[in-house]
Amino acid sequence: MVKASDFKGKDVLSMRDYGREEIDFLLDKATEMVPVAEKGSTLLRGKILATLFFEPSTRTRLSFESAMLRLGGSVTGFSDPSASSVKKGETLEDTIKTVENYCDVIAMRHPEEDAARRAAAAAKIPVLNGGSGSGEHPTQALLDLHTMKYAKGKIDGLTIGLCGDLLYGRTTHSLALALNHFDVELYLISPKELTMKPDILKDLKMKHTATTDLKKVLPKLDVLYDTRIQKERFADPVQYEKLKDAYIIDPKLVKSGKQDLVVMHPLPRVNEITTDVDAMPNAWYFRQVRHGVYVRMALLALVLGAL
Amino acid sequence: MVKASDFKGKDVLSMRDYGREEIDFLLDKATEMVPVAEKGSTLLRGKILATLFFEPSTRTRLSFESAMLRLGGSVTGFSDPSASSVKKGETLEDTIKTVENYCDVIAMRHPEEDAARRAAAAAKIPVLNGGSGSGEHPTQALLDLHTMKYAKGKIDGLTIGLCGDLLYGRTTHSLALALNHFDVELYLISPKELTMKPDILKDLKMKHTATTDLKKVLPKLDVLYDTRIQKERFADPVQYEKLKDAYIIDPKLVKSGKQDLVVMHPLPRVNEITTDVDAMPNAWYFRQVRHGVYVRMALLALVLGAL
Amino acid sequence: MVKASDFKGKDVLSMRDYGREEIDFLLDKATEMVPVAEKGSTLLRGKILATLFFEPSTRTRLSFESAMLRLGGSVTGFSDPSASSVKKGETLEDTIKTVENYCDVIAMRHPEEDAARRAAAAAKIPVLNGGSGSGEHPTQALLDLHTMKYAKGKIDGLTIGLCGDLLYGRTTHSLALALNHFDVELYLISPKELTMKPDILKDLKMKHTATTDLKKVLPKLDVLYDTRIQKERFADPVQYEKLKDAYIIDPKLVKSGKQDLVVMHPLPRVNEITTDVDAMPNAWYFRQVRHGVYVRMALLALVLGAL
Repeated sequence: MVKASDFKGKDVLSMRDYGREEIDFLLDKATEMVPVAEKGSTLLRGKILATLFFEPSTRTRLSFESAMLRLGGSVTGFSDPSASSVKKGETLEDTIKTVENYCDVIAMRHPEEDAARRAAAAAKIPVLNGGSGSGEHPTQALLDLHTMKYAKGKIDGLTIGLCGDLLYGRTTHSLALALNHFDVELYLISPKELTMKPDILKDLKMKHTATTDLKKVLPKLDVLYDTRIQKERFADPVQYEKLKDAYIIDPKLVKSGKQDLVVMHPLPRVNEITTDVDAMPNAWYFRQVRHGVYVRMALLALVLGAL
Repeated sequence: MVKASDFKGKDVLSMRDYGREEIDFLLDKATEMVPVAEKGSTLLRGKILATLFFEPSTRTRLSFESAMLRLGGSVTGFSDPSASSVKKGETLEDTIKTVENYCDVIAMRHPEEDAARRAAAAAKIPVLNGGSGSGEHPTQALLDLHTMKYAKGKIDGLTIGLCGDLLYGRTTHSLALALNHFDVELYLISPKELTMKPDILKDLKMKHTATTDLKKVLPKLDVLYDTRIQKERFADPVQYEKLKDAYIIDPKLVKSGKQDLVVMHPLPRVNEITTDVDAMPNAWYFRQVRHGVYVRMALLALVLGAL
Repeated sequence: MVKASDFKGKDVLSMRDYGREEIDFLLDKATEMVPVAEKGSTLLRGKILATLFFEPSTRTRLSFESAMLRLGGSVTGFSDPSASSVKKGETLEDTIKTVENYCDVIAMRHPEEDAARRAAAAAKIPVLNGGSGSGEHPTQALLDLHTMKYAKGKIDGLTIGLCGDLLYGRTTHSLALALNHFDVELYLISPKELTMKPDILKDLKMKHTATTDLKKVLPKLDVLYDTRIQKERFADPVQYEKLKDAYIIDPKLVKSGKQDLVVMHPLPRVNEITTDVDAMPNAWYFRQVRHGVYVRMALLALVLGAL
C-alpha cells in the first residue's frame, strides 16, 4: 500500500521509479489539489522552493512556482543560467550543496541528461526534476496522465494516439513509458523519418501500432496527444511539405473523430493545431497546463511531508 | 454611479476606456491605499500576480510587484523576454492562455502596440497593461493624475505644463488625454521639432497653448510635468545645443515659478532636472513613484474583486 | 551597551563601522536566528526586501532572499543589471530613490567600490551591502565569524590560517580586519605572488605570520580559511605549477591537522579542496553557507526594527 509518507523527503527524478500503485496514488493526490488550487492553502507556509533553471523554461518554472505559492509557500531561485555561479566554474554538486541551505525543496531544469540525478545525490533536501536534457521530465508525464484521467474519468481502456515527432519528442517517450502501467492501446502516428525512438519502442508493453496516417486512425482514438514536427528534422524538404499537412489538426479533422475525443499537446505549439480548434470542447491542451499545477502541488506537498 | 464591482474581472488596457467618473473613482480608491501601503494588508492573500515583461522595465515591474506584495498577494513571472517561450515561436495568445493557469491576474509590458489588447482578448483573467509599444501606459497616466491630485488637493482648476519631448514621449500623450476629463489649462512646452503629436493634439478639449519658452510660461503653472529630450531627435545639433539649456530645470528656474509649483517627471531622468532640485519641496518626481504603487494596489484589488 | 534599536533604520555597509561590542551583538542575534530559520517566523510579514543585483551573484542574492522569506517577509528586485533602468542612463542614486518606494529594505551588489555607500546616502530606507566592487562585503565577514564561533564555541584564543589568494581575495581582507577585534593569532598562507594586500596587512593588530608553507603551519591551526588561487595571477606558469599542489586541501592534509580543525571556504571552489574532504566532520564550507542566512536574518530583522 503506497502512502503519503513514502514520498516524504524523496526526490522526483524519473517515471521509471514509479509503478502503477505509485502513479495512481500521485494522480489521486493531484486530484485532491484541484479545489485547493482554487481556494488557496497555507499547507506549505514557511517553506521555500528554489527553482534552479539552468536552461530557460517559463512554462515549467512558472508552473512549479504557482504550485508552491498556491500552497502558501514561497519561492526563490534563478531562471537564467548566466546569473548562476556555474560560470565561475562551480560544479553542479557544489551549487546544489550551497542552494539547499536557502530552501526546503529544489525544482530544477538542466541541459544535461543526468543532472537531476546528480543533484539529487548531492542534496539532502528533495529535488524535483523539471526536465534534464533530452531525458526525463516526470512531472510532464504525470500531468499528461492526470489530464487524461480527469478528461475521460479513467486511463485504462483508452485508445491513445501519440502523434508528431516520436523520435525526438521527449514528452511522448515519458508518456509512452508511463502508459505501460495501464491497459491502453497506442497508435504511434508519425512520418517515417520520426517514428518512435527504438529505445522506447522496445520497452512498450501495451498493444501498439505504428502508422503514418493520422486521418485513418483518428476515428479510433479516445485521446490524441499531438506534438510539434520540426522541419529541420527532414533530409528531404519535399518529403516534409508532403507530410506536414497530414498532421495539421483542424476542426474538420477533430470532427472526424469521436465526439468526446480529447486533444492534448505539451505546448508550445506552432501551427500543428489550428487556433480554431481552441474553442472546441475537445481542446484540452490549455487545460492540460493547469493539471501541471495540480500535479506539482501534490508532489511539493508530498516530498515536504505535508500530506 | 461607478462602483467597485464594475472593475471585477476587467482588464485595464487604455485610459480611453475611462470617463471622468471612472477616473475619479480609481483615484479615490488609490487614495484609500495610502495607509494600506504603509501598514500592509492581507486583502489579496492567496492571489498570484504574473508579471510578464517582454521588454525590460524595472520601474513598472517592481511597482506592480510591490503593489501585489503590499496587499498580501504573491508574484511570479519573467522579466526577460529571452527566457520566455516566445523564442520557441509561441504566439502571445498561446503564452497568455498558458500563463493564466498559473495566476489570477497578469501585468504585462510588450514592445508591440496592440499586445495588451490581444492578451486581454486571449485571457480569461484580468490583464493590466504595463506599457505596450509606443502606445498606452494607463497606470502611468493614473499615477500622474493621482500625484497631482494628492499634491494639489484637486485637478480641476490647475494650470499644467507638459514639457520636453511631446512628440515621442508617450507619458505626455496619455496624461494629456486623461486631462481632457478635467477643467484644466495646458501649456505644451517643447522645441518646435518635438511639438505635441498631431494625433493627440487634435483630440485635446481643454484650453491649450503651445510654446517653446519654458521660462516665460513657468510662472503661470501649478504643475510642471517634465520629460526627457533626446539629442538624437534633432536633425541639427546646433539647434539642440541652443534649446537644451532652455529646458534644464534647476532651483533658480523652480524659484521663478509659484511657491507651491509641483515638479513631476515620469523618470528615468538624465540631466533635464538638476539634482539640487531633488531636496526642494516642489520636487514630486520621486514621490510620484510611490503613487504608482497606490494606483496599482487599487487596480489589483478592484480587478480581483477584493474591494 | 549595544542594543537592537541601535541598528533600526541603519545601513550595513562596512565591517569598519563596527567595534567588538557591535560584532558580538550581531553574532548573538544571528545565533538566535538558528531555531527561527528552522521553524520559520512571521516577524517581517508585510515587509518587502528589494534585491538589487547590478552584478550577478546567485549565492548572495538567494541568501538574502531566503533570510527574508524565513522571517515571513517578501522579495522583489532584479538579478540582471541589463534589465534595470541603468542602461537608460539613470544614476545609481535615482534608481535607489525610485526603488525605495517599492520596498522597506534594499540588499544590493554593485561592481563599483563606493556604490553601497552612495546608495545608502541616497536612500531613506536601510541599505545592506551585498558586495561592492573589490571592496567591502560585510555580511560575508559576519557569516565567516559566525561560522567560526558556532563551530568552535568562541573566536578568542583561536589560531586561524587564511590561505590562498590573500592579495585579491576580498573575503580574506574583510575577515582579517574583523578579526582585529578578537584575541586571535593569524597565519597568512599564500604564494609570495599573492601575499596579504599591504593596505590590509598594515592595519592588522593581532599577532600574524606570513608563510608559503601550508603543510608546515597546518598542525597549529584551529581554523583553516581557504580561498581560490587563480592561475592567471601568476606571471610565471612554472611558479604556479610548483605552488598549486601545496595548496590543494585533501583528506590527508586535513588529517595532518588538529582533530577538530575547521575548514572554511567562501565558495565557489574549483579544485582547491578535493571533494572527498566534503564528508569529513572538519568540512564547514557548506554549513558556512547556512550561517549566511542566519546573519542576514538577524541584520534584516534589526534594521527593520523587528527585534
